[in-house]
Amino acid sequence: MNPTDVDNILEQVREALDREDWTLAVALVEALRPPDQADVFGELPASEQDVLLPRLDLEDSADILEELEEEEAAEIAARLEPEELANILDEMEPDEAADLLGDIAPEHAAEVLAAMEEPDEVRPLLIHADESAGGLMTSAKVTLHGRMTVEQALTYLRASQLELGTVYYLLVVDEDVRLAGVVPLRRLIVSAPTTRIQDIMDTDVISVRAGADQEEAARLMARYDLLALPVVDGDDHLLGLITHDDLVEVLEEEATEDIYRLGGVPGEQPHDAPISSALRLRLPWLLLNMITALVSGIVLNFFKSTIAKVAALTVFFPFVAGVCGSAGTQTLTVTVRGLAMGELTPRDGLGMLAREMFIGLVNGLAVGVLVTLVALALGELPALGLIVGAAIVMNMVGAGIAGALVPIAMQAVQVDPALASPILVTTITDTLGYLLYLGLATLILIPLI
Amino acid sequence: MNPTDVDNILEQVREALDREDWTLAVALVEALRPPDQADVFGELPASEQDVLLPRLDLEDSADILEELEEEEAAEIAARLEPEELANILDEMEPDEAADLLGDIAPEHAAEVLAAMEEPDEVRPLLIHADESAGGLMTSAKVTLHGRMTVEQALTYLRASQLELGTVYYLLVVDEDVRLAGVVPLRRLIVSAPTTRIQDIMDTDVISVRAGADQEEAARLMARYDLLALPVVDGDDHLLGLITHDDLVEVLEEEATEDIYRLGGVPGEQPHDAPISSALRLRLPWLLLNMITALVSGIVLNFFKSTIAKVAALTVFFPFVAGVCGSAGTQTLTVTVRGLAMGELTPRDGLGMLAREMFIGLVNGLAVGVLVTLVALALGELPALGLIVGAAIVMNMVGAGIAGALVPIAMQAVQVDPALASPILVTTITDTLGYLLYLGLATLILIPLI
Repeated sequence: MNPTDVDNILEQVREALDREDWTLAVALVEALRPPDQADVFGELPASEQDVLLPRLDLEDSADILEELEEEEAAEIAARLEPEELANILDEMEPDEAADLLGDIAPEHAAEVLAAMEEPDEVRPLLIHADESAGGLMTSAKVTLHGRMTVEQALTYLRASQLELGTVYYLLVVDEDVRLAGVVPLRRLIVSAPTTRIQDIMDTDVISVRAGADQEEAARLMARYDLLALPVVDGDDHLLGLITHDDLVEVLEEEATEDIYRLGGVPGEQPHDAPISSALRLRLPWLLLNMITALVSGIVLNFFKSTIAKVAALTVFFPFVAGVCGSAGTQTLTVTVRGLAMGELTPRDGLGMLAREMFIGLVNGLAVGVLVTLVALALGELPALGLIVGAAIVMNMVGAGIAGALVPIAMQAVQVDPALASPILVTTITDTLGYLLYLGLATLILIPLI
Repeated sequence: MNPTDVDNILEQVREALDREDWTLAVALVEALRPPDQADVFGELPASEQDVLLPRLDLEDSADILEELEEEEAAEIAARLEPEELANILDEMEPDEAADLLGDIAPEHAAEVLAAMEEPDEVRPLLIHADESAGGLMTSAKVTLHGRMTVEQALTYLRASQLELGTVYYLLVVDEDVRLAGVVPLRRLIVSAPTTRIQDIMDTDVISVRAGADQEEAARLMARYDLLALPVVDGDDHLLGLITHDDLVEVLEEEATEDIYRLGGVPGEQPHDAPISSALRLRLPWLLLNMITALVSGIVLNFFKSTIAKVAALTVFFPFVAGVCGSAGTQTLTVTVRGLAMGELTPRDGLGMLAREMFIGLVNGLAVGVLVTLVALALGELPALGLIVGAAIVMNMVGAGIAGALVPIAMQAVQVDPALASPILVTTITDTLGYLLYLGLATLILIPLI
């Protein structure tokens, strides 16, 4: 469904609500798929949401709260009576229910939990940090034992009335609820009914500790192409499992985080976050940028008398600082992404450095010669043309070094390269550019005039 | 398995190969999971790869070629005899086999296809463009008919000896091989044996046309949480399906593409691409940057005499141009990502513009006042301090406007905002900054001295 279709349905829902035709409004929303339901529902004003929600199926309500942005879902949940919300949460995946409970006031959450039918599926999930593997996992509703036969397992599955949700792998545990193996659902189907589970299970199971970072869990699932990843405690006891829908969410979150950090927005927030929180996030970064500007400013201040003598020098600032800065950004982009994808490790540092220095040299020669020609064509002093060309070549090599070394060094000291590199690399290319260019000009050009 | 473990195994494999102990080398590699096998194998020199590959199980060879980087796999495949390669491809997923065949010389590929056991699974996949939905899909090996019973379907599944690969949903087709519905494998298990497939299938199936962009397919799978997405032609005939492993790959590819484009690397290539191809990608971008530097340079040239009179003006260039450029980058980052994730559409343009202008104003006031204070503290002319502050406030508002409007306008004319925005926004903030700052200085400061 494309945005236009969502808009059309939204229009119809609004009209129905205006006429107080609840039946039509409910029917329109319930005919949609969950993400589309949430899109339509999210666009309604709070008052209409509050009128519509209690009239929807509990399952649809649960789907909508699962699919809405966290903050929006929390706001709606906060306005519901504990019993109402408990009924909806009973229909949600345990991990989604736990996330939502974590986002509302603790006293309200406690009342809701008390009113839930199966709070024990949700309660153990509440203790894990949001961005940890434990925070992502949901409870494993169906586990098998090794000595069951395939037929017993299938009967058990049919009898367990399992929600047709997140079951692709069946986890096998031993007597102490330690993770013993895994059986893909499809293998259960193609195996003879009398086979024992322990004879068809894979014992070499990839799992993750509850305390691990969510990115580690996502990397494991992506690398080994897993639809579900069991989560265990330090003694290998099965705590739950992470499902593939979380994988996609984490991957997109991590990509957004990297893009934001590289763009000088050191924290993830939607494009329409409250202005106050946007300012809190962005202003400190700009102030940090001011420090780096101060460093360049000090260099420029040092060369004031040179600039006063040959004001034409400033014409080429955008080449010496700006274009070289772009080259540094290119190198750091490739390096940061390589590090994030695990394709590049600090061990590869020296090779990367040599490579980027060489690329900087070649790009520097190309750009430097062109800028020299432009300077000469504009009728500037020949010496100025040569000086700006030389400064560009050297600063381009410097940009290659900084663009490769800074992120690798950051990674080595366990600071996210995406966060710290852009500002550092730009400070280096700006400062080095002014130093080289104005230094050469002071040494060579000034004595000539 | 972490990189250190891969290194350890690699070391042992190398030692085994040095001693010509093929059995040990093979055993070491075969004990690994496919992505780890590919990591180890990929680190070996070509000569050792050629010795090792024919000694591995065909299935392991297939896994390794599937998991290696495309270029690496193509190089290895090109060195194999047609029969050897055909045997390996027979073990690969049809979509992976088709991708590999597309990467080697057409005559070689034709010979290999002729030598394959089931070339008809692969041949139809070869005609689709690499980055289209058709290019991602694999052949649907098992399809059901609506009038089958659950029991017949299960018997058929057991008899079909299906590879335990990519079967989670079972597609149901009609007599003309048109897509009629879908049955989740798990529903088959929990349904009564005599039920007809058509009574338990979902008829409202999300599918994608073969010609659609791979990103559209990935967005559908991510949004609707699909493990597999059927691909159809214009008449709804089932052509194949896209599986979740492709989803993760496409999402990571698209994120890399956006990160690269935002960083001025307008094309995806690994951090260790050949230097010549890195230069071909990056140099044109730097040359384009030179044009934008030229625009700023022209402005600076215009104000040469002002600068000659008050060289101290240059000290604040990094604030007026650089820090405001960072603010513009922040805005464009949030806007570009919002557009890419479909959370922001050109319709939201006006709201985004107002919001970012306001943020620019507040940030501008904060940074502007600080820089004014710094200037005054450094003992510069009071007028200079006020002028730089005023220029910063105005340029910050301009940065907000440019950072929001440029990407939205790009999206509206269907140019990727990630590709075009950074360079345009920086050009605007640089040029506007110099114009405002030096313009004010010429009008106000020069008459004072």
